[in-house]
Order: sequence, then C-alpha cells, then structure tokens
Amino acid sequence: MSGTAGTAERTRVRRGPEKQDHDVEARDAVLASALSGVAAVVDDGQPFALPVAVAPDTDPGTGGARLLVHGSTGSRLFRLLASGAPACLTVTLLDGVVLARSQFESSMNYRCVLALGRFSPVAPDDADRALQVITEHLLPGRSVDARPASRQETAATLLLALPLVEWSLKVSAGGPDDDPADLDRPVWAGVVPLHQVWGEPLPAPDLRRGIPVPAYIATWPEGRS
Amino acid sequence: MSGTAGTAERTRVRRGPEKQDHDVEARDAVLASALSGVAAVVDDGQPFALPVAVAPDTDPGTGGARLLVHGSTGSRLFRLLASGAPACLTVTLLDGVVLARSQFESSMNYRCVLALGRFSPVAPDDADRALQVITEHLLPGRSVDARPASRQETAATLLLALPLVEWSLKVSAGGPDDDPADLDRPVWAGVVPLHQVWGEPLPAPDLRRGIPVPAYIATWPEGRS
Repeated sequence: MSGTAGTAERTRVRRGPEKQDHDVEARDAVLASALSGVAAVVDDGQPFALPVAVAPDTDPGTGGARLLVHGSTGSRLFRLLASGAPACLTVTLLDGVVLARSQFESSMNYRCVLALGRFSPVAPDDADRALQVITEHLLPGRSVDARPASRQETAATLLLALPLVEWSLKVSAGGPDDDPADLDRPVWAGVVPLHQVWGEPLPAPDLRRGIPVPAYIATWPEGRS
Repeated sequence: MSGTAGTAERTRVRRGPEKQDHDVEARDAVLASALSGVAAVVDDGQPFALPVAVAPDTDPGTGGARLLVHGSTGSRLFRLLASGAPACLTVTLLDGVVLARSQFESSMNYRCVLALGRFSPVAPDDADRALQVITEHLLPGRSVDARPASRQETAATLLLALPLVEWSLKVSAGGPDDDPADLDRPVWAGVVPLHQVWGEPLPAPDLRRGIPVPAYIATWPEGRS
C-alpha cells in the first residue's frame, strides 16, 4: 500500500487488522477476478452506492495502477463522480460461509478491495485503449470480435479512472475460529465455499444462422463475480 | 414503492427507466437471494462503501419491511451507521454478461436493490430474534444447531435496521439490444449466465470425529451471492 500517512490512515483496517493485507499481488488477483464493484459518492449529504463494472488498468501517462469504470453521460451520479467528488470504489469477492459452533463466530470468507479518491475522466486520446481494456477484462477475446465503439458512442460514454493510491485489501479466509469452550459441542463446523460459474451461452433470438459460440468463451475463468 | 414524493424522487431511476421495477415481490426475491450488500456512509465528506451481510426482516413493531445488518461495536464506520447518519444499502445480484455485436451495446444482466435512509439500532428486546433472522437467512437451518449468542456476544454486536421506505429496484435482463445496422455482422450475440453455486463443505481441522455434514446444507438454494 502506498500513499501518505494521512491517506493510509483512512484506509487502515481497524477491526480485525489481521485481515488486512497490503500485498499488491493479492490486491491485483481480486481485481482480476472481479467483474463489478460498487462506487459510492455523496450528493447533498446523501451517499449513493452504485453497482459498476470495474476493470484494472495502468495509467499510460504515470504508469500507476488505476481502476476504470464507465457509465452514461446522461447519469447524474456518474457526472458527479466525473466531477471529482470524493468517492469510494469497493470490490468484493464472496468466497464462502464459515460455520462455527456458535452463531457469533460464524462469518463469511471474502476478499475486499476498498479504494478512496476522486475519479477523473480518461484522457480523450486514451479513450479507445481504455474501452478495449474494459471489454477485454469483462469479456476476454471480445474486443477483436465485436464492433469497437464509434466516435459518437465513445462521446456518449463517461470513462473514468480512479488511481489506486489510497486503498486497502481485507481478506477473510480459512475455517471457524471457535471459542475453546465450544469445541466439544456436537455441531458440524467448517466452510461451505461459494463459486461463481459460467452457465451455458444463450444465443440471441435474432442471431444469424451458422454463427457458433465463440471459442474464447470456453476459456473464461470461473470464480469471477 | 412507497415513500413521499421527495423520497421517491431520490431513488427514481433516471437512466434506463425501463429497468426500474417497483414490484415488491421482485425486490423481495432479490433480497431473499442475496447474502451480502454494500453499506455506504459519509465520514467527514468522504464516502465509504463497506461490504456487509444483509438479511430481510419485518419490523415487529410497525410491520414494515426492513433490512438487517450487523457489525462490531468496535467498528468506527458501523458506529457511524448506528448513529443514524444518512446511508445507502445496495444489494446486487450479477446474473450474466450480455454480448452484443457492438462493444457499446454489450452489458451485464443484474438485479439491484438500492435503499436510502438511516439505520437505527434494533430494539434490545428484539435483538435475539433479529440475530436468529440473520443466521437463518445466511445459513438456513443453522439457528437450531449452532450455539445462539450469549448476552455478552449480543452486547458486542451492533445490530442495525434500515426501513425499506425509500428504495428502488433496477433489473437488467434479457439479450442484447443491438443497433439494427449491426445485426448482420458475423458475430455471435447472446447472454452468458453467471451462477453462484455452493462447493463441497470443508470440515474444520478440529472437528470432532463422527459429526456428519448437516443435512440442511444440501437444501441451501443455489444462486445466492
């Protein structure tokens, strides 16, 4: 984790600090698996948390890690994000449920990246590349198959980047941590994993005849959410 | 959807209003399937979006629908939620990816419930029941098996409720909506569904011998996330 002491302070995990993990590789593994996250922004004192597709990227100018999101220029809350209002982008992968002998110690296994900062619009001369990064992250293989955005479509898209400067990674993994007094209870304890899997591709009703399901879909990794 | 005109205004879906669905049954189906959501709260102008386990409930006092979350009394942001600060609780189920012939029209299928309001602590005389509701929602069958919370454990838990008064449901479903000019492109189009499935239960290393995996786990519905 980088950032000033002040920024580090705001994303320090206070509860369960053993769950905080500053490892950039672990952070990037979460971001590589995640298709979506939630962007929070404040409008007139009221926070809004919006689901957004999220793609990790490298700023071609600074070389710094950043997260890309995109939305419509017609969305009020997206325009608020674009204006540089303070924001939070949270990406969570739910890995399973933890069944302890007590309900109190029962919990969930998850990995969560929380990033604070201000979004800014992607530079116009970087928009085409950034859109391809988003497409390739969400739909690997698709950027050389589906038609790229036209100039008009790109203009209708708010393409925003959040630098990964002030961030935290929180990981909850492993089995139950029962109170020793509960260990002898005749109750099953352990973990039930949750997996995200792709289903069978469903062709559009108006699909032209004779176009097979693309081979790249079969290579999509499981475990994305 | 209920609420005043003012509250309705803040959760009206402005973009893609065809995706907004005020149907309470559809909302409750999302909440029944969701294990977690994201609670957003503002601290000194900075929004924070925190992953939380979420359980739907009925307020025994008013009969109104509400959402329960719980956290530690030691969590600063949870205490902020408990203080009645303006909050947003967003629950999203990701149902699949939509592959259009153009990258611009490609999208995701999802169902999202967004609720605005202020959390308040669950009444002390309702805490035991509310904790059982949370356990039964997240881990059906478990509340009669694992040890219930002790008085001390209940005291260490911040148990909060958000009334479902100001809320919206946004649903994106179905296949790609391509520009007519793109329909003849020799590109596959359709939907690739995403499913959340339970994995094989993993016993805790210190599980007492002879305790089988509980039968109720096999009855847990798939598709929860």
